[in-house]
Amino acid sequence: SSASTPIRATLFPGDGIGPEIAESVKQIFQAAEVPIEWEEHYVGTEIDPRTQSFLTWESLESVRRNRVGLKGPMATPIGKGHRSLNLTLRKELNLYANVRPCYSLPGYKTRYDNVDLITIRENTEGEYSGLEHQVVRGVVESLKIITRQASLRVAEYAFHYAKAHGRERVSAIHKANIMQKTDGLFLKCCREVAEKYPEIKYEEVVIDNCCMMLVKNPALFDVLVMPNLYGDIISDLCAGLIGGLGLTPSCNIGEGGIALAEAVHGSAPDIAGKNLANPTALLLSSVTMLRHLDLHDKADRIQNAILNTIAEGKYRTADLGGSSKTTEFTKAIIDQL
Amino acid sequence: SSASTPIRATLFPGDGIGPEIAESVKQIFQAAEVPIEWEEHYVGTEIDPRTQSFLTWESLESVRRNRVGLKGPMATPIGKGHRSLNLTLRKELNLYANVRPCYSLPGYKTRYDNVDLITIRENTEGEYSGLEHQVVRGVVESLKIITRQASLRVAEYAFHYAKAHGRERVSAIHKANIMQKTDGLFLKCCREVAEKYPEIKYEEVVIDNCCMMLVKNPALFDVLVMPNLYGDIISDLCAGLIGGLGLTPSCNIGEGGIALAEAVHGSAPDIAGKNLANPTALLLSSVTMLRHLDLHDKADRIQNAILNTIAEGKYRTADLGGSSKTTEFTKAIIDQL
Ligand SMILES: CC(C)[C@H](C(=O)O)[C@@H](O)C(=O)O
Ligand SMILES: CC(C)[C@H](C(=O)O)[C@@H](O)C(=O)O
Repeated sequence: SSASTPIRATLFPGDGIGPEIAESVKQIFQAAEVPIEWEEHYVGTEIDPRTQSFLTWESLESVRRNRVGLKGPMATPIGKGHRSLNLTLRKELNLYANVRPCYSLPGYKTRYDNVDLITIRENTEGEYSGLEHQVVRGVVESLKIITRQASLRVAEYAFHYAKAHGRERVSAIHKANIMQKTDGLFLKCCREVAEKYPEIKYEEVVIDNCCMMLVKNPALFDVLVMPNLYGDIISDLCAGLIGGLGLTPSCNIGEGGIALAEAVHGSAPDIAGKNLANPTALLLSSVTMLRHLDLHDKADRIQNAILNTIAEGKYRTADLGGSSKTTEFTKAIIDQL
Repeated sequence: SSASTPIRATLFPGDGIGPEIAESVKQIFQAAEVPIEWEEHYVGTEIDPRTQSFLTWESLESVRRNRVGLKGPMATPIGKGHRSLNLTLRKELNLYANVRPCYSLPGYKTRYDNVDLITIRENTEGEYSGLEHQVVRGVVESLKIITRQASLRVAEYAFHYAKAHGRERVSAIHKANIMQKTDGLFLKCCREVAEKYPEIKYEEVVIDNCCMMLVKNPALFDVLVMPNLYGDIISDLCAGLIGGLGLTPSCNIGEGGIALAEAVHGSAPDIAGKNLANPTALLLSSVTMLRHLDLHDKADRIQNAILNTIAEGKYRTADLGGSSKTTEFTKAIIDQL
């Protein structure tokens, strides 16, 4: 059926190196005969009053309609009066969970072997509430908001994910010894959900200790679920273990089953347009999108081609110590398909 | 002069393995003829109404009087109606900066070589305000408080420390792209202080990126200064790079020049009283205390003896893969003096 009716998906190539790495995805999808038809949207040049940001309303409507999309890096233009592009997407599309599979790339050596973790970050509240004010001169405060609804939702997603992907354990990361009410509520929700998944082990780990354990021995963890800021920190730490944001896929899950996969690295304006960018993070993100669509055959084929190309080492982009152009690396992957 | 008038210092042996590792410090100080006279205080068995915790008022008075102290691990008894011992100490003694030198121990292999960092953590406010409440059912909030006074104070300490210790650079760690007012104020204060130290390089690094850089290449950093929670997280991450909390010294700096050095690991009740504990963290903390007192000769002598003993590897405690008892390891250090 998928051969006859292609799935429509939104594509935000993004800024800087975005269009080049998006081109790599498009070519590889075509070569692998992925039944996807892209609906491309670019970041606007003026603030759209309906989104209060440079994102156009049409582009958000496109994701809402298609329920699935892929996003390159977006550089939020500097200046006041508009919202960060990434935060607007999260808010407007209610992208409540950011999922990052983090695994060692075979043949690409870092200090860590066999990393295989999933970080699942609550993506809508916590320290990202945007509620801050000056109490008196020289005294400012910001509000961290934790709700039962958002905590249950992300915990549900984490356990669901763990079960669906044959994972053994979910660790809830927190600082409830200090923030007893906020992180305490988060943990309470995780515990409630854990009870519904007796086949998945559940544990709670304090964030400082978690970071220490991660750098000592990442194999101690499996699936990690946590409030927004801890997720921001730990997912980047984990990316560092395997080589950085240029290699890590990411996917945002929204209410109603929306999935917006994204490369979380920057737009690298210094190398933009020079055919030097590494498309790996966006490619591996597109693979998570395929898995979300249950196109596992295509996902496996593309993922293997990417990983084999990197493992063989003949074609690698400069950031991985090679000298291949983006297009050469892309072609090498297509040859592997 | 120090030979004739010993310096009085408060000693909190603490719980669990605390008394054994404190004994190690006492013996080594005696062997090295450190002109210090200990005033020992134990954690009480009842809540002292004047401290609202199991810490006695007398023990706090002792630190206030001596202005210098050393503290083993303290296990906060479970139950309501009293404050955490560590937090009580920080609050009551106004211990505004937690300083952790984090360096690779020669001969003790981890994934990282030549780590040499100092983390300086604001220790009194931020996410540790203790201000939390339920807004409505299922919605809780906690307040992060940043003040100009506390931010300037810790920034001053960081730059002062960098200069006094011949360090080149101070990095302020933040998330001001999200918490523009709170972390923004912290950065503003750091910038103000940085201007007074033109000889020290200054940079600002977002916490998620900082954690990624730390695990990829810790040599990118020198002195790091940050708000409370980030300091909690990053100082443990850094400890992980060199082997864990059992090896990392820590010193708290309070208003009026108080210095309370402490081992930040747990009280390890499972091995307490068995002569198995590793006293390294408390010993290296006692060295930071000596440096604070400008007793650099003694500090160097003891630090070298500790590091040489670990480097030679003949006498190591079980946590470092050896089979030495606490007392054997202590004696080996004394033999090195
Ligand atoms: C750019 C920034 C606002 C963002 C965040 O803090 O969430 C980024 O770090 C991320 O993880 O996507
Ligand atoms: C025990 C806990 C309250 C404490 C903290 O969070 O500060 C600890 O992690 C530390 O770093 O000293």
